[in-house]
Amino acid sequence: MSFVLARRAERMNPSVIREILKLTEKPGIVSLAGGLPAPEGFPVEAMRAACERVLRDTPGEALQYAASEGFGPLREWVAAEMGAQGLACEASQVLITTGSQQGLDLAGKLLIDAGSSVAVERPTYLGALQAFAPYEPEVISIEGDDDGPLPDALAAARFVYLLPNFQNPSGRCLSAARRHALADAAQALGLPVVEDNPYGELWFDAAPPPPLAARAPGNTIYLGSFSKVLAPGLRLGYIVAPKAIFPKLLQAKQAADLHTPGFNQRVVHEVVRDGFLREHLPAVRARYRAQRDAMRDALQRHLPAGCRWSVPAGGMFFWLELPEGVDATALLPAAVARGMAYVPGAAFFADHARANTLRLSFVTVPPDDIERGVALLAQTLKENA
Amino acid sequence: MSFVLARRAERMNPSVIREILKLTEKPGIVSLAGGLPAPEGFPVEAMRAACERVLRDTPGEALQYAASEGFGPLREWVAAEMGAQGLACEASQVLITTGSQQGLDLAGKLLIDAGSSVAVERPTYLGALQAFAPYEPEVISIEGDDDGPLPDALAAARFVYLLPNFQNPSGRCLSAARRHALADAAQALGLPVVEDNPYGELWFDAAPPPPLAARAPGNTIYLGSFSKVLAPGLRLGYIVAPKAIFPKLLQAKQAADLHTPGFNQRVVHEVVRDGFLREHLPAVRARYRAQRDAMRDALQRHLPAGCRWSVPAGGMFFWLELPEGVDATALLPAAVARGMAYVPGAAFFADHARANTLRLSFVTVPPDDIERGVALLAQTLKENA
Repeated sequence: MSFVLARRAERMNPSVIREILKLTEKPGIVSLAGGLPAPEGFPVEAMRAACERVLRDTPGEALQYAASEGFGPLREWVAAEMGAQGLACEASQVLITTGSQQGLDLAGKLLIDAGSSVAVERPTYLGALQAFAPYEPEVISIEGDDDGPLPDALAAARFVYLLPNFQNPSGRCLSAARRHALADAAQALGLPVVEDNPYGELWFDAAPPPPLAARAPGNTIYLGSFSKVLAPGLRLGYIVAPKAIFPKLLQAKQAADLHTPGFNQRVVHEVVRDGFLREHLPAVRARYRAQRDAMRDALQRHLPAGCRWSVPAGGMFFWLELPEGVDATALLPAAVARGMAYVPGAAFFADHARANTLRLSFVTVPPDDIERGVALLAQTLKENA
Repeated sequence: MSFVLARRAERMNPSVIREILKLTEKPGIVSLAGGLPAPEGFPVEAMRAACERVLRDTPGEALQYAASEGFGPLREWVAAEMGAQGLACEASQVLITTGSQQGLDLAGKLLIDAGSSVAVERPTYLGALQAFAPYEPEVISIEGDDDGPLPDALAAARFVYLLPNFQNPSGRCLSAARRHALADAAQALGLPVVEDNPYGELWFDAAPPPPLAARAPGNTIYLGSFSKVLAPGLRLGYIVAPKAIFPKLLQAKQAADLHTPGFNQRVVHEVVRDGFLREHLPAVRARYRAQRDAMRDALQRHLPAGCRWSVPAGGMFFWLELPEGVDATALLPAAVARGMAYVPGAAFFADHARANTLRLSFVTVPPDDIERGVALLAQTLKENA
């Protein structure tokens, strides 16, 4: 063909998870692979009423081109919400994005030169690795312990990417003390932080500590999302950025898609404006807590000796360590043949992947299916031990 | 600040047009600057009914994560529509994008290395220059005549970017013969074409000739949009790509925002699926034709000698050449002071900008305002001659 691809195209790869999701679409498979929110939690009636109101009251504005920054009242709402979570900011620092995946893309576009160092957790969110990859960074994994990355392990880089709340894939939630230590160490190094928080509202016992951005607002680009608190199909996220860097993020956004759909922004603002989430989120949390419990119990009941996991205090995932020598990627076809699917952990490592790890989601299927899926996983493990 | 920006950030700039739009937001200004579709043409009732049906029949799917390729039935619809316009393709070659601005971003991301040559028309669409700029191309303008770029002026590059139908900003529509000659010359050179077609349906007398992609489908990435035929606030566009390059475009899309909002895709599919556009578009064309006529008459009536323009046969814009020596950028504050706004033409040139040009949109304001705006422009020109 006549097309000559840019060098960065070599770094683009199909998402392992999306390839697995295709595998698991055949009927009868219990998929614990995808991180798909339970559709029973989608606020359908509120959405319907909001669409109706937006198209009745402001159709001309909602369907027209709009500001690249985002819909003013929604930016105000986000700023107020951030304030309540400990991150004081102005609406002028809020950029509405087409899902928080776009926030990752814009951060990469703005901050990464070919060969730049970018620091990430081990393991880290696969979608972030994919968003950064086309900008050709050298990705460095930070050593950590059960409480998160070690502040002493931070080193100079274009930025460090952190997901402090119920991380995807590990489920880990950083303590307040570790957040402070990481934020302070990064600031001392002149190392900017890109802080991703899709799961923070999905806590089961207590809200997580304030974001790192609250400790070091001038040094942090914070990413938020409506995907897990309302619905992902709206593709609505936001960036809260220091004032010094906001104009360049905005220019990158404008070049990428002009603006996020104004209709979606107005509909979501209609849904959330009068405190809807205060009533809605407890039900989502209760559902996911029950499903987390079901998975916790099933793992205890079924998994053979030598497997390790922690019980997450929120979010969507259990992270399993299988006995040394077991390769979760190699095992997947056997699991699918038995009727269940998971995501092999290797995809979540920027380097030195640990082959004996895997990720299980507890939010997509109900407790009975969780029980069945985990039992099938256990059988697969025993059969192939 | 601790943020170190990537080298590409130097190429990002605020959109001249969006800066002008801010200027013109004060009440009483007749803005002929923005290319905003007339909101009277937005299919509000069809949208309302479609939102209702989608949230009643498939809420769980519409609000969930979805395939990066786009919603299957909408891809099928696009493929059928393309076939009717002379571009035979399969649904598997259709990638749904977050507006066609995202199509430009993805094409740039996939095809441009720093220093790569990219060929464009003179003048060309500003948003394309902005989308490509962060990938650091060397942009080359192709010489042309009244019928479009000259096939002999094409030379080796990563791709040539063409907007054949009622171009933004020039209003120019390429003849069938010129399309064939350009498509053939590009193919002979091994020069891929990125063909942008946001305005093709906005014809006043006859539909434009088939796209270049119909002549050279394996050598062309074709971009389409629902922004001008339905409404831009939905941010819905599409790419039709050769099979050889589709997987890499899809990977770039996935990294950029996972997928375009599934809710919007399903709503638009509901709106268009049963032939809605066949009834809707004639009304849009009739409105814009009347407004084109109003601007044509006003220009003839008011503009001083030495100004030149062609009457566009579709689209949204008149392109004016002022007398040599008049600088449309320098003149803009005087025009705004009088109460009207336009976009200086200089922004639409990749190089050797012609300062004595400007763009007027005839689609946003009604005929009376067009008449008034053009009269104010004429007064400004005479006052400053």
